[in-house]
Amino acid sequence: MAKDQKKQPRPKAETPKGFRDYFGADVTERKQMLDRIAEIYHRHGFEPLETSAVETVEALGKFLPDVDRPNAGVFAWQEAEVPGGGTGDWLALRYDLTAPLARVAAQFRNDLPSPYRRYAMGPVWRNEKPGPGRFRQFYQCDADTVGAASVAADAEICAMLAAALEHAGIARGDYLIRINNRKVLNGILESMGVDHGKPADDVLRTIDKFDKVGEQGVRQLLTTGRKDDSGAFIDGVGLSPEQAEPVIAFLTSKGTDNTQTLANLRAAVGTSEAGAEGVEELAQIAAMLAAMGVGEDRAVIDPSIVRGLGYYTGPVFEAELTFEILDEKGRKRQFGSVAGGGRYDGLVERFTGQKVPATGVSIGVDRLLAALRAKGLMGGAEQGPVVVTVMDRERMADYQAMAAELRAAGIRAEVYLGNPKNFGNQLKYADKRDAPVAIIQGTDEAQRGVVQVKDLILGAKIAAEASHDEWKAQPAQTEVPRQDLIAEVRRILG
Amino acid sequence: MAKDQKKQPRPKAETPKGFRDYFGADVTERKQMLDRIAEIYHRHGFEPLETSAVETVEALGKFLPDVDRPNAGVFAWQEAEVPGGGTGDWLALRYDLTAPLARVAAQFRNDLPSPYRRYAMGPVWRNEKPGPGRFRQFYQCDADTVGAASVAADAEICAMLAAALEHAGIARGDYLIRINNRKVLNGILESMGVDHGKPADDVLRTIDKFDKVGEQGVRQLLTTGRKDDSGAFIDGVGLSPEQAEPVIAFLTSKGTDNTQTLANLRAAVGTSEAGAEGVEELAQIAAMLAAMGVGEDRAVIDPSIVRGLGYYTGPVFEAELTFEILDEKGRKRQFGSVAGGGRYDGLVERFTGQKVPATGVSIGVDRLLAALRAKGLMGGAEQGPVVVTVMDRERMADYQAMAAELRAAGIRAEVYLGNPKNFGNQLKYADKRDAPVAIIQGTDEAQRGVVQVKDLILGAKIAAEASHDEWKAQPAQTEVPRQDLIAEVRRILG
Repeated sequence: MAKDQKKQPRPKAETPKGFRDYFGADVTERKQMLDRIAEIYHRHGFEPLETSAVETVEALGKFLPDVDRPNAGVFAWQEAEVPGGGTGDWLALRYDLTAPLARVAAQFRNDLPSPYRRYAMGPVWRNEKPGPGRFRQFYQCDADTVGAASVAADAEICAMLAAALEHAGIARGDYLIRINNRKVLNGILESMGVDHGKPADDVLRTIDKFDKVGEQGVRQLLTTGRKDDSGAFIDGVGLSPEQAEPVIAFLTSKGTDNTQTLANLRAAVGTSEAGAEGVEELAQIAAMLAAMGVGEDRAVIDPSIVRGLGYYTGPVFEAELTFEILDEKGRKRQFGSVAGGGRYDGLVERFTGQKVPATGVSIGVDRLLAALRAKGLMGGAEQGPVVVTVMDRERMADYQAMAAELRAAGIRAEVYLGNPKNFGNQLKYADKRDAPVAIIQGTDEAQRGVVQVKDLILGAKIAAEASHDEWKAQPAQTEVPRQDLIAEVRRILG
Repeated sequence: MAKDQKKQPRPKAETPKGFRDYFGADVTERKQMLDRIAEIYHRHGFEPLETSAVETVEALGKFLPDVDRPNAGVFAWQEAEVPGGGTGDWLALRYDLTAPLARVAAQFRNDLPSPYRRYAMGPVWRNEKPGPGRFRQFYQCDADTVGAASVAADAEICAMLAAALEHAGIARGDYLIRINNRKVLNGILESMGVDHGKPADDVLRTIDKFDKVGEQGVRQLLTTGRKDDSGAFIDGVGLSPEQAEPVIAFLTSKGTDNTQTLANLRAAVGTSEAGAEGVEELAQIAAMLAAMGVGEDRAVIDPSIVRGLGYYTGPVFEAELTFEILDEKGRKRQFGSVAGGGRYDGLVERFTGQKVPATGVSIGVDRLLAALRAKGLMGGAEQGPVVVTVMDRERMADYQAMAAELRAAGIRAEVYLGNPKNFGNQLKYADKRDAPVAIIQGTDEAQRGVVQVKDLILGAKIAAEASHDEWKAQPAQTEVPRQDLIAEVRRILG
């Protein structure tokens, strides 16, 4: 294992590059958000699944759905030689939550209910170059239905996603789920005679740039090519302008409502049966969403959504937050995508040889959390504990009794456990802990059977070196009988 | 990375050896237990910390506190060559939550409050031979105070542990926290002239067997040696019987209450100053626990607790569950230890050269969960979702509307999404899902504006191949107007 570790007198106290720690509210806020999402998933009949972080490289395979990170590698290592002889397996940290689901769906196919609805939340690891805000361990939050061929499963995922975003705190009107369907495009490609092999791949790859280069850019790239912003010339796919037109018609068929969009799509697919089937699926999804009470203001058919269209095999969906935030330079911009997913068939096939229909969605945990913080819906609010200061270290048990009483009353409390000699340090500590209240009881107060209860929020900034006497003179401090401690703290906390 | 991966047509759908998956209640029950524990830790002023799973081998070091697994290895790999030249770091998965805390305490020593109270819950990885019930990834749940020299920190940890166990569901009287102190033993060894080097190590190693071999066994092992159960002779440490006696006196000094135990310990340490200091620490802890309302029925001084005494530098504690359970052979046995901890100084020193006092506790997550299940406090109770069956696949939107209505009423519900052709399969599915209720609406019922609501708990086992008509004849099935669906389901769920 760690044979190569150099003997050094002092190891560096650092995370590996691209890894980070989460402190206090970082942890509790993410947990709170995921708990809210899990409630919704659970109510929809989804069961939690927690697979191990480590998989065999063989089982993990390599089918990253995430087009944002196509070159993502994995952290892998080879097991030591097996006692019985032979070389050890290659193991790796999971790079997403979909590959382990595929393994589970195959391994436990005789035991799991079918269809199997599961959600999974946890860290995944990517061995790629870290950058600002780009970490090699991050959270994913997925929900998938395995074994359901009907687009009812896709509609359900979209409705559930809308409910989850709202339950996490995103207001209706602040998000929109857009739905497209690979099958419609397949139909169009079929009628163009480019439905498989390299030409189909080229068209799919080109369409994936629609977000960036727009209608005219895609038209150029599908035909003769295009100069990009840097001045470099990108070769075209070589279609004739007439051949490119159905693809453009597909991408731009979004109307003012689902009915109009579906009509535009029907026109775009022409006589293609496969295309008609794809449009029919979208029509069904639209009808089901309406039946579930999900209006077009929350989830809408939108063929301009192309992310993942090359990977997925049926409906694809993407949730975007529609409100504006200020970027680091103070410019307004749309918050953008926080979740995406779709239907894919290859999931279990690698293991069993049988195609198993599956559909699912992944929420970008860090992005959604950032959105909630940007909207002021999370962060900064949590109060620290009441700090019981130590005036007389011989009477530590008395201070601990006070803290225990406060806790028994449901109030977060702690005794100062550092060196009590310098009282100023205790106040600095209380400040660092965001303590709302400090409790003080010196020998004098103990003899008189009273405690000082200091309202730190009201008292605000107290000079770190203030003496006990100066401090007592502050108006935000009240002397109360010892037995009124809880009542007084409750009064201050409100 | 995965260069050695063999090209195989069908990868095996298996977890790596020693790893496992957690399904449904496995996940939610553990989460529920940890949430309860976290509530208590939070109320005591502890902050959550979530470090990355991956550390540099350099930072991780090698100081496993866990005497149960002294040969535990780590999963490690070397980073690819750094772009700027030079070899990459060795990285490894954390093997516990203490080593990362040491790194964090050193890395962020200028930013963290001091003392720093933190809790951490999450998986750790050990590269060791898996066995029955012995996994290479498992959960730990730790709470530590870094930077507090006073034994008030130890007393607080013990009181908090008692509160956490009770809040998780272990009744008062069903657990006992036992507290010992390495310093008392140090004083005794000092007065014997064996307080450092190999003799001290030998004595510590011998004492660690007290649990197993008892008073007479330790006496033999400290002096001339002992034949073990297998007949093998274990060499003795070579002390004279007189030298061994103070150690035995220490180990057996537990009296009927703390007062008596402390008196016995004072006698055992004789004139040793270090020993007297250790006894005084235990006396303080006893007084503080009493002040916090933690009686001796919950936490008690007990010098026979020796686990970890060789690793820790001050107080050590161990929580045992005192109720009996039946083992796999139906024999009664004590449940045993579920948590342990103590004070240790070397934590941050590796990084900074400065001794930083620290104390903490680790709860055995899997063991505590097993205990709660053994007591019937968890497991098996969770009800599945209401299943809306599909009689007419053209009316999927209607069924989805029913499920959406149920969910809006706070009722867990799902539509059957498999192939609806065979109704028996739908009932099998509902059974597998532990569904309490199934909803049925065929064309006939739809036309009449009614639904069938089937009480599956009351109806119990229905033949999987029963026809729709036979099924309707069962008494546990009620026909209600469509608009009464929610009310009827509510009535059945009670």
